[in-house]
Amino acid sequence: MSSAPKANAIVSQSGGPTGVINSSLVGVIEEAKKHPEIKNLYGAIHAVSGIVKEDFIDLGKISQDVLETVAASPSSALGSSRDKPDAEYCKKVLDVFKKRDIRYFFYIGGNDSANTCFIINNMAQETGFDLRAFHVPKTIDNDLLVTDHCPGFGTAAKFVACAIMGDDLDNRALPGIKIDCVMGRHAGFLTAAATLGKQRDDDGPHLIYLPERPVTMDKFLSDIDAVYKKLGRCVVAVSEGMSDTDHKTWAEKITETDERDSHGNVQLSGTGALADYLAAQIKGKLKVKRVRADTFGYLQRSFAGLQSEVDAKEARWCGRHAVQYAMDELNGSVAMKRTGSGKNYGVELFRTELKNVAEKTKSLPDEFINKEGNGVTDAFIKYAMPLTGGLPKTEYLGNKPKI
Amino acid sequence: MSSAPKANAIVSQSGGPTGVINSSLVGVIEEAKKHPEIKNLYGAIHAVSGIVKEDFIDLGKISQDVLETVAASPSSALGSSRDKPDAEYCKKVLDVFKKRDIRYFFYIGGNDSANTCFIINNMAQETGFDLRAFHVPKTIDNDLLVTDHCPGFGTAAKFVACAIMGDDLDNRALPGIKIDCVMGRHAGFLTAAATLGKQRDDDGPHLIYLPERPVTMDKFLSDIDAVYKKLGRCVVAVSEGMSDTDHKTWAEKITETDERDSHGNVQLSGTGALADYLAAQIKGKLKVKRVRADTFGYLQRSFAGLQSEVDAKEARWCGRHAVQYAMDELNGSVAMKRTGSGKNYGVELFRTELKNVAEKTKSLPDEFINKEGNGVTDAFIKYAMPLTGGLPKTEYLGNKPKI
Repeated sequence: MSSAPKANAIVSQSGGPTGVINSSLVGVIEEAKKHPEIKNLYGAIHAVSGIVKEDFIDLGKISQDVLETVAASPSSALGSSRDKPDAEYCKKVLDVFKKRDIRYFFYIGGNDSANTCFIINNMAQETGFDLRAFHVPKTIDNDLLVTDHCPGFGTAAKFVACAIMGDDLDNRALPGIKIDCVMGRHAGFLTAAATLGKQRDDDGPHLIYLPERPVTMDKFLSDIDAVYKKLGRCVVAVSEGMSDTDHKTWAEKITETDERDSHGNVQLSGTGALADYLAAQIKGKLKVKRVRADTFGYLQRSFAGLQSEVDAKEARWCGRHAVQYAMDELNGSVAMKRTGSGKNYGVELFRTELKNVAEKTKSLPDEFINKEGNGVTDAFIKYAMPLTGGLPKTEYLGNKPKI
Repeated sequence: MSSAPKANAIVSQSGGPTGVINSSLVGVIEEAKKHPEIKNLYGAIHAVSGIVKEDFIDLGKISQDVLETVAASPSSALGSSRDKPDAEYCKKVLDVFKKRDIRYFFYIGGNDSANTCFIINNMAQETGFDLRAFHVPKTIDNDLLVTDHCPGFGTAAKFVACAIMGDDLDNRALPGIKIDCVMGRHAGFLTAAATLGKQRDDDGPHLIYLPERPVTMDKFLSDIDAVYKKLGRCVVAVSEGMSDTDHKTWAEKITETDERDSHGNVQLSGTGALADYLAAQIKGKLKVKRVRADTFGYLQRSFAGLQSEVDAKEARWCGRHAVQYAMDELNGSVAMKRTGSGKNYGVELFRTELKNVAEKTKSLPDEFINKEGNGVTDAFIKYAMPLTGGLPKTEYLGNKPKI
């Protein structure tokens, strides 16, 4: 292992924001200050697009007070980008690194960001440039490989659980059928998290539809009908990535059948479309009067003042560890291993190869999904609950004994 | 003033739930325990519909521990109802009161609930039945007369402000145009609350559209275009009750122009429709690529674990005071008067006549709306900020000096 070079470092945030991606950023900043090998720590604004434009700020100059507020703030404090850099783009990044003597690259993001790290790292090695490229994981989807779970998921899971807890109580107060559409195009972890706040036997969500379990509209409707007939109400959590048994997503199907051509103004690609479509199906087919639909939208990933403490702490650790690893290793991605469960929940951090994380994703494992494919198992609750840092308790009085 | 009768009491919750309507309920319960005039305190499940069915629970039997959890829980712990009782319905209510020797009636709700109280109270007086009917205010819309503000608004305002704060940071990270649709069909208070989290000059929401200021689609689009050209992004808060200058609501207009007839499945009456429609207009007319829309939906009124402390405290006081007033007065509605502003913010409670509150609503006053009709004034911020109990601070680093 060659000794760590004395050079500048850069950190950046990529992809969709989360509630704790800034905690990881602050972890990188506070750890970098401890290492004299790192001369300046630059923050690149808007990820790789900011790197090629040399749109940099000096992160060494931010006070600890401000850093604590950054760590508690949702979204990406350095801005983000959806750019997926190709080889030519990566070469430009590397040119800037060489020009600015940047030899430490910390990239906070999902599997695409790990891949960007991987490509730039390979390119640096090929040209004999001593670069240390580290990926810090983040995603509300919780779909990265190797790591037990991803920073960002716990906070989003807490938001979704609290939203459904409130909405389920609302649905008890004014009964009907309620559809709640949750983020997660390919992996069902976040939709599954809708169950985490269940406290009473008849609490919602009563049904959960995950991208991992395609379902026909008929089955979806008959499931809801059965719950509604039994309880007089039904709360349903649906992943935005739900697909039919022909593996076409419902969202795609809506677009296909969208034959509106008169004005061309009302499109179905907006974020509320899937939930509204499902509500309309239920109203039409099940003849239930009170049907409502909400799409939780961007609030799931960026809501001020709501973090899972556990998630925020782990995200910060991941940032710190990336810098520590960079002192001894040439590249890698930070990952977490669970060391205990329930009250003994804890994690150990470790380094994994960039290629193990780059471009790959995982789905909700089979053991977390119930047999019928419309709910989750206790194993999922056990896995996900500690990541929320705990959920509020609620009470409903309407099912107390009558006098 | 006749002395308070020794009899049973009943409490119930009506209309749309809020984040603190249960705090008012607990206020009624804990105060009722102190008054030997009140023999039993019944809770009627699902408001007036539960009263006529005698669907009652014994609130004297709930432990203090459970009551504290009730007070912290969103939605209506006794269930709610949208029934608007007519004279015949009210007579049935009164029959149950007579049968069960219920002579104290505490009804937590909005202006419709105040009206129900008013009708039942008049009917009791006409038939010589000694009933004490009190209305306890609640509404996220903040549109009741007489009172300075309504319990429920502060918590909903905090939710909307935190949502927009997060969403605005998200929009900085991945710039584009973002439409956020906020509850409040006739009064713009809650949409106006979207501004409360603004901390930096260029923070969103950059534009606000209120039911009190009808606007043409052309003006709406040109406002957004101007902000987008200046900042490269734009966050817009729109009330669900927005109307065009012909005073037809935009939601109505969408339904009118909905000529889709092929399948009949996709309707535009779902909750996401207005925001999606506006996003489609912007995409089509302004040729901006990244346009997103969210509808905050029921999360605004029922979200577990989020309350304004000030709001929760005041809601509880209102419940307690209703019982206190009932010992000396025959009927009334609880109202709040502000005794100081800023750091000296405080309220005094007082009793007002039911008829002053029944069926009437107020709008956002002119002095709270800016000249252009697309934003709020400092006077609104001064009025509304204390009600949130304070908002989290956030940081964004992308506008720090470049190096």
